[in-house]
Amino acid sequence: MYSNKNSRSGSKRRSVLHEVIFEADTPAGKAFDIFLLCCIALSVLAVMLDSVKVVRIQYGGVLYAIEWIFTILFTVEYILRLLCVGRPFMYAKSFFGIVDLLAIAPTYLSMLLPGSQYLLVIRLLRVLRIFRVLKLVYYLGEATVLIQALRASRRKITVFIFVIFTIVIIVGSLMYLIESEESGFTSIPRSVYWAIVTLTTVGYGDISPKTSLGQALAALVMILGFSIIAVPTGIVTAEITQAMGQKKVSTQACSECSAEGHEIDAVYCKFCGAKM
Amino acid sequence: MYSNKNSRSGSKRRSVLHEVIFEADTPAGKAFDIFLLCCIALSVLAVMLDSVKVVRIQYGGVLYAIEWIFTILFTVEYILRLLCVGRPFMYAKSFFGIVDLLAIAPTYLSMLLPGSQYLLVIRLLRVLRIFRVLKLVYYLGEATVLIQALRASRRKITVFIFVIFTIVIIVGSLMYLIESEESGFTSIPRSVYWAIVTLTTVGYGDISPKTSLGQALAALVMILGFSIIAVPTGIVTAEITQAMGQKKVSTQACSECSAEGHEIDAVYCKFCGAKM
Amino acid sequence: MYSNKNSRSGSKRRSVLHEVIFEADTPAGKAFDIFLLCCIALSVLAVMLDSVKVVRIQYGGVLYAIEWIFTILFTVEYILRLLCVGRPFMYAKSFFGIVDLLAIAPTYLSMLLPGSQYLLVIRLLRVLRIFRVLKLVYYLGEATVLIQALRASRRKITVFIFVIFTIVIIVGSLMYLIESEESGFTSIPRSVYWAIVTLTTVGYGDISPKTSLGQALAALVMILGFSIIAVPTGIVTAEITQAMGQKKVSTQACSECSAEGHEIDAVYCKFCGAKM
Amino acid sequence: MYSNKNSRSGSKRRSVLHEVIFEADTPAGKAFDIFLLCCIALSVLAVMLDSVKVVRIQYGGVLYAIEWIFTILFTVEYILRLLCVGRPFMYAKSFFGIVDLLAIAPTYLSMLLPGSQYLLVIRLLRVLRIFRVLKLVYYLGEATVLIQALRASRRKITVFIFVIFTIVIIVGSLMYLIESEESGFTSIPRSVYWAIVTLTTVGYGDISPKTSLGQALAALVMILGFSIIAVPTGIVTAEITQAMGQKKVSTQACSECSAEGHEIDAVYCKFCGAKM
Repeated sequence: MYSNKNSRSGSKRRSVLHEVIFEADTPAGKAFDIFLLCCIALSVLAVMLDSVKVVRIQYGGVLYAIEWIFTILFTVEYILRLLCVGRPFMYAKSFFGIVDLLAIAPTYLSMLLPGSQYLLVIRLLRVLRIFRVLKLVYYLGEATVLIQALRASRRKITVFIFVIFTIVIIVGSLMYLIESEESGFTSIPRSVYWAIVTLTTVGYGDISPKTSLGQALAALVMILGFSIIAVPTGIVTAEITQAMGQKKVSTQACSECSAEGHEIDAVYCKFCGAKM
Repeated sequence: MYSNKNSRSGSKRRSVLHEVIFEADTPAGKAFDIFLLCCIALSVLAVMLDSVKVVRIQYGGVLYAIEWIFTILFTVEYILRLLCVGRPFMYAKSFFGIVDLLAIAPTYLSMLLPGSQYLLVIRLLRVLRIFRVLKLVYYLGEATVLIQALRASRRKITVFIFVIFTIVIIVGSLMYLIESEESGFTSIPRSVYWAIVTLTTVGYGDISPKTSLGQALAALVMILGFSIIAVPTGIVTAEITQAMGQKKVSTQACSECSAEGHEIDAVYCKFCGAKM
Repeated sequence: MYSNKNSRSGSKRRSVLHEVIFEADTPAGKAFDIFLLCCIALSVLAVMLDSVKVVRIQYGGVLYAIEWIFTILFTVEYILRLLCVGRPFMYAKSFFGIVDLLAIAPTYLSMLLPGSQYLLVIRLLRVLRIFRVLKLVYYLGEATVLIQALRASRRKITVFIFVIFTIVIIVGSLMYLIESEESGFTSIPRSVYWAIVTLTTVGYGDISPKTSLGQALAALVMILGFSIIAVPTGIVTAEITQAMGQKKVSTQACSECSAEGHEIDAVYCKFCGAKM
Repeated sequence: MYSNKNSRSGSKRRSVLHEVIFEADTPAGKAFDIFLLCCIALSVLAVMLDSVKVVRIQYGGVLYAIEWIFTILFTVEYILRLLCVGRPFMYAKSFFGIVDLLAIAPTYLSMLLPGSQYLLVIRLLRVLRIFRVLKLVYYLGEATVLIQALRASRRKITVFIFVIFTIVIIVGSLMYLIESEESGFTSIPRSVYWAIVTLTTVGYGDISPKTSLGQALAALVMILGFSIIAVPTGIVTAEITQAMGQKKVSTQACSECSAEGHEIDAVYCKFCGAKM
């Protein structure tokens, strides 16, 4: 089907469409992106409002119509993207291809499964439409340094999260033995949940130790959590500092005195004055 | 009106007034600023105490008088500022011009609208007087490095906050489906509120998951929040380190090409090679 | 007993076993490690599920069998480790030797002590099996930089934690005097527990000040905690930055005086002046 | 009185005493310090246990005796310190002189005021004995780098805390108007307390917004608090990095090539090989 349409449309019209839909540099492309962003924000707002009982009772019909209008709009956009891109299957299999599909699928699925017994599932599918909002990140070009720093610290963060999990499982198990079931520590998984709530300094208070020994252990976990937060922060800060610093120092060595560490904009060696 | 008064007052008297009111270097200017700071602190304290029921019943009259005394004082100050400044409209439209006006307006408005039905609105207006406190920042000269670092990290922080919003909307929606309404997850906006409470590690506990699946998702959000806090910290730290490091750049300009921004250890100008 | 077995087994067979069990570089060693990791994860999962009442009632027998299978498996592994290692006593006394023993001991102990009155203690022993999970850290080689940074900041962190303890004891004692027993501040240790909950920004809410003075002190503690978290973060970040920066130190030794630790941009040895 | 005793004791005996009490380098001085540390820890523990009702009923007499023994011991120590120090009044007026006095005063005061009506006040005085623990910091020499970094960032932290106070007063006032008194926002000071609890991510949950507008504002405050924590962390990290870095780079310039930035242990210039 796509190849049929592909052969019908001239390569010129396709490249214009490609520019408008995929690029954000040209005025037309920019206008399209801003329009798309507004549509995404509005449709997400509609889904959110629809979940509020008071609003649904009064404006349920309007919100239903809005949902369908945006779904059709995004469907047209998805088809156009498939048409104008060089390799449609590559796009469809890419992260944003899947997100684009997930952003329209739930509304159609809610039609095919009208049985009242599937209602809850349909609601789950409808909510998945919010993944559409993920596209927003795609439109912002500022995230590069952050992503680079996070990628560099990926493995260290993994070790850190693994250590966190080990700690919360052991602490949770100890707490299950120390505290009675009346305090809310009814099973090890639930005690591990409490340990996570405490270590991350969230502290709901729905489960909290009542015995002195339990409170002493909880105090230790809190101080550990308060100190341990320094580790991911230290990792990411060091990586961001490095990612930002790499732009600054040239790798060029002076041909006269072989001194290194010159700034990128340096024309003469700052130590011996020779031209670089 | 202002121009009339302007023409009446000599430029000498105006410049003395300007020095006292706008400058903080001269003894008179410093004394004026300290006096103003005390007045602001006292008037804010009076508004705060007035909201405490026990205090209002006993000292309501005194606090009402204090409020009017400070309002008149600040009004006189505002008029003097308009008179002695070179371009009154520029000042009136500036950030602190508007803050100065907002700091006196509520009390006058509470007079014009004496109807009991507007009481609540009047209270809102009265509280706006606290914006006066914002002027305090103006008097401190230490904030420069911080503001510079925050300005440099502005765009990265925006991306970060946008990612946070995307995460809390998706997590909130999933939680709305997982948890029943009895746990407090009555709508998606409320579930998003819960997600923010959890991700930022605040953790009130007024809404908290009851099901195992909900608690597992909550645990993931907590660990994410605990790790993700590293990102703004890393950004700001890197910028502050850089802002503080920039002091190490020499203020010396090359005598040949007048280029600036040399490092302190530079012996030769890095742009033209001349000895510095 | 171990030396008997030692003499029976040839040194060749022992070295192959050693390679498989202790090394992770060869295909056989890697496969063994991955298999062991899965076993550890599964057995921990079984212990955790066993604590959930609903699961225990229905699958108690299966979980009991799984626990015994894994215990026997880990016992065989422990004996093999003792057999193939050069100095069995050194291994048995090392951290992971003790962890390995603790990981199998509770199940056997639960057999020797069948009295119903010790049931709770037996559960404590069973939970200790989760220490087995600690072995996981051993298998990850990524933790070196983190451990190096934490070791370097060990003493500063100790001072920091000591200051924290001093603050919470003083604040807790003051709070005990300010607040009545009805608010939950029934003793100084409990008030210190509250101070830790507040300073680390956990904030359960099970104990919270009710009087104005108490809330003012609590507010001070919160702002202190919010600011003080910067200290461990700063320490660890500075150490990680340094640990990562040390890679920039050249591994080259001076050919004259064999001193190491030269910077990468060094041209002459900084200790003897010889050209490098 | 002190000068009398001063003249009686020989200068030799005094200098030996001075060495034992004030120095920590000699074996005798170290042993004295360790003994003192144990005494302080034990006496603080006794005060804390005395506040627990169950313990006081059973061991009240023993704890009372322990308190008096330690008080007499610390009194003797305080008098010895006054005797052996060169200028007793300088010591008495110094920070630790006052702390030493505060550490013994409450027990004596509880004797002079035996009236049952002052009981609560006496308890306050007794708790002040815990200030004794502050002496501990005195004995640790590791805190220097931390104190140096905190002193350097003192003014920036002040600006930061001032901004925090401005934010919480404005947010608290707005919240007082938005939320009804039933949610716990009974006055502006109490709303400001809530704002501090939320901004610092403590989140007790004793006061929490119920209206949608209130929850939206609360969410903003949380995200602000989550982001703003980066500021003190950034300041302190930058200062610690600088404080640690200052040890490393010598300020000495090469006499031949005038290059700077040599390491402290450098004997020869790393750029030209000249002896430094």
